[in-house]
Amino acid sequence: MWEWDCPPHPPSSSSSSHPSSPKLPCNWFVKIVSGYDAWCGVAHGCTRKLGMKICGFLQKNNSLEERSRIVSSFKERAAKNLLSCDNSGGEARFSRTETDFSNLFARDLLPAKNGEEQTMQFLLEVVEILTNYVRKTFDRSTKVLDFHHPHQLLEGMEGFNLELSDQPESLEQILVDCRDTLKYGVRTGHPRFFNQLSTGLDIVGLAGEWLTSTANTNMFTYEIAPVFVLMEQLTLKKMREIVGWPVGEGDGIFSPGGAISNMYSVMIARYKFFPEVKTKGMAAAPRLILFTSEHYLTDERLFLQSHYSIKKASAALGFGTENLILLRTDERGRVIPADLEAKVIEAKQKGYVPMFVNATAGTTVYGAFDPINEIADICEKYNMWLHVDGAWGGGLLMSRKHRHKLNGVERANSVTWNPHKMMGVPLQCSAILVRERGLLQGCNSMSAGYLFQPDKQYDVTYDTGDKAIQCGRHVDIFKFWLMWKAKGTVGFEQHIDKCLDLSAYLYNKIKNREGYQMVFDGEPQHTNVCFWYFPPSLRGLPDGEERRERLHKVAPKIKALMMESGTTMVGYQPQGDKVNFFRMVISNHAATRSDIDFLIEEIERLGNDL
Amino acid sequence: MWEWDCPPHPPSSSSSSHPSSPKLPCNWFVKIVSGYDAWCGVAHGCTRKLGMKICGFLQKNNSLEERSRIVSSFKERAAKNLLSCDNSGGEARFSRTETDFSNLFARDLLPAKNGEEQTMQFLLEVVEILTNYVRKTFDRSTKVLDFHHPHQLLEGMEGFNLELSDQPESLEQILVDCRDTLKYGVRTGHPRFFNQLSTGLDIVGLAGEWLTSTANTNMFTYEIAPVFVLMEQLTLKKMREIVGWPVGEGDGIFSPGGAISNMYSVMIARYKFFPEVKTKGMAAAPRLILFTSEHYLTDERLFLQSHYSIKKASAALGFGTENLILLRTDERGRVIPADLEAKVIEAKQKGYVPMFVNATAGTTVYGAFDPINEIADICEKYNMWLHVDGAWGGGLLMSRKHRHKLNGVERANSVTWNPHKMMGVPLQCSAILVRERGLLQGCNSMSAGYLFQPDKQYDVTYDTGDKAIQCGRHVDIFKFWLMWKAKGTVGFEQHIDKCLDLSAYLYNKIKNREGYQMVFDGEPQHTNVCFWYFPPSLRGLPDGEERRERLHKVAPKIKALMMESGTTMVGYQPQGDKVNFFRMVISNHAATRSDIDFLIEEIERLGNDL
Repeated sequence: MWEWDCPPHPPSSSSSSHPSSPKLPCNWFVKIVSGYDAWCGVAHGCTRKLGMKICGFLQKNNSLEERSRIVSSFKERAAKNLLSCDNSGGEARFSRTETDFSNLFARDLLPAKNGEEQTMQFLLEVVEILTNYVRKTFDRSTKVLDFHHPHQLLEGMEGFNLELSDQPESLEQILVDCRDTLKYGVRTGHPRFFNQLSTGLDIVGLAGEWLTSTANTNMFTYEIAPVFVLMEQLTLKKMREIVGWPVGEGDGIFSPGGAISNMYSVMIARYKFFPEVKTKGMAAAPRLILFTSEHYLTDERLFLQSHYSIKKASAALGFGTENLILLRTDERGRVIPADLEAKVIEAKQKGYVPMFVNATAGTTVYGAFDPINEIADICEKYNMWLHVDGAWGGGLLMSRKHRHKLNGVERANSVTWNPHKMMGVPLQCSAILVRERGLLQGCNSMSAGYLFQPDKQYDVTYDTGDKAIQCGRHVDIFKFWLMWKAKGTVGFEQHIDKCLDLSAYLYNKIKNREGYQMVFDGEPQHTNVCFWYFPPSLRGLPDGEERRERLHKVAPKIKALMMESGTTMVGYQPQGDKVNFFRMVISNHAATRSDIDFLIEEIERLGNDL
Repeated sequence: MWEWDCPPHPPSSSSSSHPSSPKLPCNWFVKIVSGYDAWCGVAHGCTRKLGMKICGFLQKNNSLEERSRIVSSFKERAAKNLLSCDNSGGEARFSRTETDFSNLFARDLLPAKNGEEQTMQFLLEVVEILTNYVRKTFDRSTKVLDFHHPHQLLEGMEGFNLELSDQPESLEQILVDCRDTLKYGVRTGHPRFFNQLSTGLDIVGLAGEWLTSTANTNMFTYEIAPVFVLMEQLTLKKMREIVGWPVGEGDGIFSPGGAISNMYSVMIARYKFFPEVKTKGMAAAPRLILFTSEHYLTDERLFLQSHYSIKKASAALGFGTENLILLRTDERGRVIPADLEAKVIEAKQKGYVPMFVNATAGTTVYGAFDPINEIADICEKYNMWLHVDGAWGGGLLMSRKHRHKLNGVERANSVTWNPHKMMGVPLQCSAILVRERGLLQGCNSMSAGYLFQPDKQYDVTYDTGDKAIQCGRHVDIFKFWLMWKAKGTVGFEQHIDKCLDLSAYLYNKIKNREGYQMVFDGEPQHTNVCFWYFPPSLRGLPDGEERRERLHKVAPKIKALMMESGTTMVGYQPQGDKVNFFRMVISNHAATRSDIDFLIEEIERLGNDL
């Protein structure tokens, strides 16, 4: 499993050569030294030279006598060193006595001559900071955030200065900046962070992102990203199989997020029905009408209500937001199919062309799943494109228990599915899947000669550049592929089922609890649990404007107190005529029932006296 | 500098507790053990328990007698262990005797109970793989790539199986997958990788990306990304200052790449002149005309000729590609302003509305800079939006020596500038800068109520969601901010100047060299050096069709041989009536004159007998 570029033991003469020499006979000595130093010697707070000895004596010497000599020498030095460790025992800060990053700069790192040791030291220091952060993320005794106002951070917190300057800063300052950046940020992987649809910190996914950054390439061609391009192709095929398209037929691409994926769906639909728009513009088409749920226009950011990705697409792509028709929903937030049909007929009567319907699988606030089959019937009847926005709910397709909520998804013409939401994949990871092959390329290719490239020595049909609206494209696939390998399909299923179980636990806990009222009746379809909390002072009030007004202020106030105490985070928002309520969502596999209990205790602790 | 969440020494009772216990009194013991183990013990190939002892005995015991006992014990164990190390001394593969990832799975990592040690071990193993890759990336004795055809990788290379399965794989397999992914990829940071505009592997940028992945948040609101949102704001302001807008006034946002940034520019221009298109669609506007260089329609992917981002935008946004007019260029690939004016007049005579001009600062093939001031004059005269696509050339603004090539950029209405190209920032990092404040938000905001949010306890004007066409948005700023801190403005300037010096070196080396011909005369404006190589067999041929046809095949053939031998990579492509030529670009700060020499030697070695 461990491979080396060199014989397992270096020539004994290497014991006298300096570890940072660029012409070392092999890499492993540097590896050991820098590894030991950063991870072991540093942790001791003992001197680096000693650390090097401890590690080095096991490797560098071939004769048993020499080894014995060093073991003795080590014993002496260690004993001495222990005393010096004792002396600093009362300090909370650990002093690192030899690695002096204050005199090192970015220019001293690779590719600088002799830069290898410093580079490894620096990266290990960073990893030390990051692994420490990972540890704290999962530690419930730490805060979710340490809140500061923008002006406080801008003014500079204890030496954390965001301003850029002309002159370089030392690597020591860079490491401090890294620590401070994490310190004043939000631990989105903390088991008590419930604020967004994307939460959690998957370790394998994290490793995948670290590797992706290190590989630092783009998805444009097979030539420069051979492995990633193939991984994307295989993963998209697997996702299409799970959607239910025969043998995974169709096409797709990973995009920078759900909004862009949804934009793709509208573009592709337009290309399917009115391909001449590509060359002649919207003037070549009649007035085209798009449909989506009225519940769609709420969002992740909460209260600011601007998820709006279909609306943003209608503005950007030249349809106009007035030609996006909102569909009425039932009390659970699901589109009423009869309303769609009525509005389609109405549009047609006006001479417009109904073209595109977005069925949402998992709305952002209620977690509602539109009835896809009934909507698909109407789309077939009126020859409209059916897109399923499963950015949030698509993950449920991985669960045998819950995938029925997306029944009919296989009838969609396109599907948005964001593994970075419910499946816990690190940001960004969003796929647009298209049932008909060729449309994605037809829509976005700008080169007629694409299919005729005799020059390249490999099969250029694997190149993806022509399918994308982007030119360069970030590698979003690897972390997802790696997580899938590591968890298996069954692992994602367990993740989904666990999160939905937790939300059922929350729902059952509060549905009849004093001081709580559900925003809609019945068990949630997704992990979204929407509820009002009434402080005792409001409980006696008669239903009416005063109670509404006061209730409207409760969630924002509790949320502000939560952020200030840093103990947990949960979103709130109003919806239609409903005043501010909490929207709880669970996508973090670190969350447990005790965290749900904690959230409720915290709401009551902070809200009791309002 | 080193901070701990706990007293420097744990209670002595902790010496008997298992290090992976979730209720450790503090973190540092685990840190030491896992750190030691992974970096030091592992490197030894000696047993993990011993590794733990060596490190642990320095920390865990407060009494001197106890320490002495352990030092003795350690001495014995170490001596024993050395013998066992000796026995395996002849093997090239290093055996790790105790950390058995073959029995560990993703489910054993955090947040699993007792998962902390395994998590740290696993992450350290990954870091070991990555740092080894980093080392090799800068080592000229390693290959740039180990080329395989798609079918070979799909069939599975020596156990590297890309297919996803239902059941989880062991962490050992996951680590093997990580190694294989890197093994079969392309080292884009290698000093001899010249294939793309984005090359290099900046260590501080890499550290920044690792941190970004670990923080795993998105840029939507200040609430969940306070530090990153402010860093973005300050950095964009600094970039606008460098563009030359007074005190950095204006607006901007980081987007997933140059194509999306350019798409923003077209959208914003349309919103400025025809704001009603947002609500009513393109039907509300007259026929709108966009202009860009004919040299614009070539690209990064080379030969496939589809950079086309303005063309893609014209298709996507509903203008139609026929309404994008291509401008003639001089022999150096620079737009001829008179041609722009003539075409503007022609469009107006037809009753169309010329709206948008893209001036390219650094074309992808020739590296040409359009004459911005002359184009700006025409834009002012005819009331058109001037966008400068500096995706590739924007970096030259950092250089006092070279920024004159963008003279007039301060007159642009918007500027695209990709730090992930010429400035060596890891992918993805692209900014769209807008001179007039308010347009970006006006164009993309879907919520009238945006400005009135009394609920939040912080100043929501820092939230960026309403400016973006995306909803969630990846944190692209941190690595760039961190690099800027680490290098200073002067460091970027040195980087730019160095790369341009190298390209001048290449130009001077080959301009009169036998067997070479430049595609255009004169010193390149950017680092792009375009040239033909004539193998000896072609040199005697008279100019004519046969020579052209044979020359057209030379670059593809040499490139294929380069990829197969893995020694270097450089792009080629045809342009207009010019047959395939090499396009050399330099953006990697690791490249030196010797690498340029190597490239030329390699072209001659591989091409000599063609």
